[in-house]
Order: sequence, then structure tokens, then C-alpha cells
Amino acid sequence: MKLYNSAMPAPNPRRVRIFAAEKGVDLPLVEVSLMKREHKSDEYRQKNSLGQTPILELDDGEVIAESVSICRYLEELYPEPPLFGRNALERAQIDMWLRRVEFVLMGPVGNFWRHAHPFTAKVVTQFKDFGESNRDQAAAAFRWLDRELAGREFIAGNDFSAADITALCTVDFAAFAGLEMPEDAGHLRAWHLRVSARPSAAA
Amino acid sequence: MKLYNSAMPAPNPRRVRIFAAEKGVDLPLVEVSLMKREHKSDEYRQKNSLGQTPILELDDGEVIAESVSICRYLEELYPEPPLFGRNALERAQIDMWLRRVEFVLMGPVGNFWRHAHPFTAKVVTQFKDFGESNRDQAAAAFRWLDRELAGREFIAGNDFSAADITALCTVDFAAFAGLEMPEDAGHLRAWHLRVSARPSAAA
Repeated sequence: MKLYNSAMPAPNPRRVRIFAAEKGVDLPLVEVSLMKREHKSDEYRQKNSLGQTPILELDDGEVIAESVSICRYLEELYPEPPLFGRNALERAQIDMWLRRVEFVLMGPVGNFWRHAHPFTAKVVTQFKDFGESNRDQAAAAFRWLDRELAGREFIAGNDFSAADITALCTVDFAAFAGLEMPEDAGHLRAWHLRVSARPSAAA
Repeated sequence: MKLYNSAMPAPNPRRVRIFAAEKGVDLPLVEVSLMKREHKSDEYRQKNSLGQTPILELDDGEVIAESVSICRYLEELYPEPPLFGRNALERAQIDMWLRRVEFVLMGPVGNFWRHAHPFTAKVVTQFKDFGESNRDQAAAAFRWLDRELAGREFIAGNDFSAADITALCTVDFAAFAGLEMPEDAGHLRAWHLRVSARPSAAA
């Protein structure tokens, strides 16, 4: 089993690295350089027709793409500590929070990066006004998460979960792209310090 | 247990209705009218702070939002027939395909609806050039799915799964929004006929 990985600041491979680190699983990494566009090569596209990283390649050649799907697979192989919940309701709620973070926060952050950031302007056609409009959307998403975190320690409840990993990677990538958490988002900032202090955050 | 539901053409509540129909589960429905903006009322937002349908409300008042998270919960309550896979690898691959359909196809379809369709122009600020650009993205996504379906009967393999439900609801909503499958996408069109013929498609 090996993980086709791309280095920071790519948020999606980092989601799997942190997940594996929390499980204490040492995944062999194969580096795929986004800068060199190795993820768009014919060879890599034979493994993932969408040309995205990460992918997990199993010993028999089977490939699992999508960071969250890879994490789910690792959860079944290494159930402890559970990061997708301990029972049906927890699993549904962690899945819900993970998806909310993706759609509500990662969506605008990705749109901003794709359509308004100078770096991507070199590679793709941008719709800059649309891209810039995502600043407000991301700010609203930060404030929504801040309110939600008022009553609890982690994104989906009182236990660290896969939803926190997605949120951490999204918040850090947003900052890299130029979208910072609002100064007065105290609950969100405290949560960010809390999850960033875990050893896995360095993975 | 009851489902706060919105009628056609809303694709997300339909995902849960089809899923429940495939399981033979009769979910009591509470209608939330999107036309009357009932999903944005304070009362509804107390159940789902994002103001979106569907949600599943359990008898003890717990709420699960996000159509896929609701389906996962139903899968645990009613395991047969399995729609998220029978083992770790199948579960990872169905999750992967479901996510791919969401990001690659539903993403552009949603952007087109949100930013280019005359209906939504009445409700929100649109970035029309960006919205229109999603026509090509959706067409490319249809063609990608068509190629992927060349060698198999269903989206994630040879069994009908949650990924097919998401794809069906997305393709039908795309058509409603004005984005049709390409005429020559034969595999995709054959798949669409196949899944539309299932009794659950009418749910």
C-alpha cells in the first residue's frame, strides 16, 4: 500500500497524512509534483482519470482516489482511534460536519484560489470578479463555524474526528491563499490552536 | 423519524427519497417549500443552521443534515440491500465515485444553476460569465462519466449503489437547468435509462 502524495500547501494529500498520523500508520509516500504537473501525466491518469492527488494504491494495484474515501478505507483497516465515529449517529454526524466544512468553507476557498489568486492565473482562465466574491463567502463560513464551535471543543462534537482534519487543512490552505480567519472569531481560533498543537498536524 | 423534504426539482431531498425507496423504507415526509423560502425561516434554521433541505429528525429531536449523511445513517439502520458497499474496498470505491460525481458533475451544474439560470437571477447576485463557463465543464464531466461507464453497468461497478442515486439526481437536475447529456454519450445515456427504469426513480 502506498500513497501518491503532493507536498504542502496542497490540502487534500495532507488530510490523508494527518489521518494516518493520528492512527499511527506509516504510509509509504510517492511524491507527485503539482508544480511539474506530474498529476496530469498520462501515466498518472491511468491511475486516476481525474488527474488529482492523493491516491492510495493497494498491493494488488487497486486504486482509491479522493482523500476522504482513502481515510474511510484506513479507518476500516485501523479502527483505533475511531475518527469517523463510534456508532451510527456519530458516524452520520461526523460525515455531516465533514461535508459541511467541504461545501461551506472549502468551496469558497477553492473558488477564490482557482479564480482570484495570482498563482493560478498563470495556469487557467479565471473569472476574477466571481473569484473575489468568495472572500465574503469564506468570511461568512468562518463566522458560521465560529458560532458552531461556541459550545464544543471539536467540529463534530467533543471528540477529535475526520471533520477536524478537513477543517484544519482547509483553514491552513485558506490562509496560504490569503483568506485569514476573522480576528474576532475566538472559538474558531481557539479550536485552530488546539488542533494545530497535535503532533499529527505536522504530517 | 421524519424527513424534512422539498419537492422536485430539488436534487438533494430526492437522493434520500430514492435511497429509502431502494431499502423499502417508508419515511414520513414534512414538506419544506423552497419557493416560499421556508428553509430560510428562523424555525427551520434552528434545526439546520445552514437552512438547507433535507434533514432527518429522529424521535429524540436529534437532526442529521446532508443527504449523503442521512443515507449513511439509513444504511446502518437498514443494511439490506447494501448501497454503500459490502466490504472495505467496495465502501471506499463507492464513496469515491459518489464524491467524484458531486465534485466533477454536480459542482458545475450547481454553479450554472446558481450563476447563469434566469430563475436564480431573481434571488441572488449572479456572475453570469462564470456561470455560463460551467456549460463546458458540465459537458466535459458528462463525457468523462460516459468513458468511465464504457466497461460497467453502474457508476461504481456492477452493482447499483448510492453513487448511482447521486448521479441520477444530478443528471436529471442538470437537464431541468438546461444542461443535457451529449447526444453521443451512449454509455451514459444507456446507464440513465437503466437507473430511471427502477421503481425508486419515481420517489
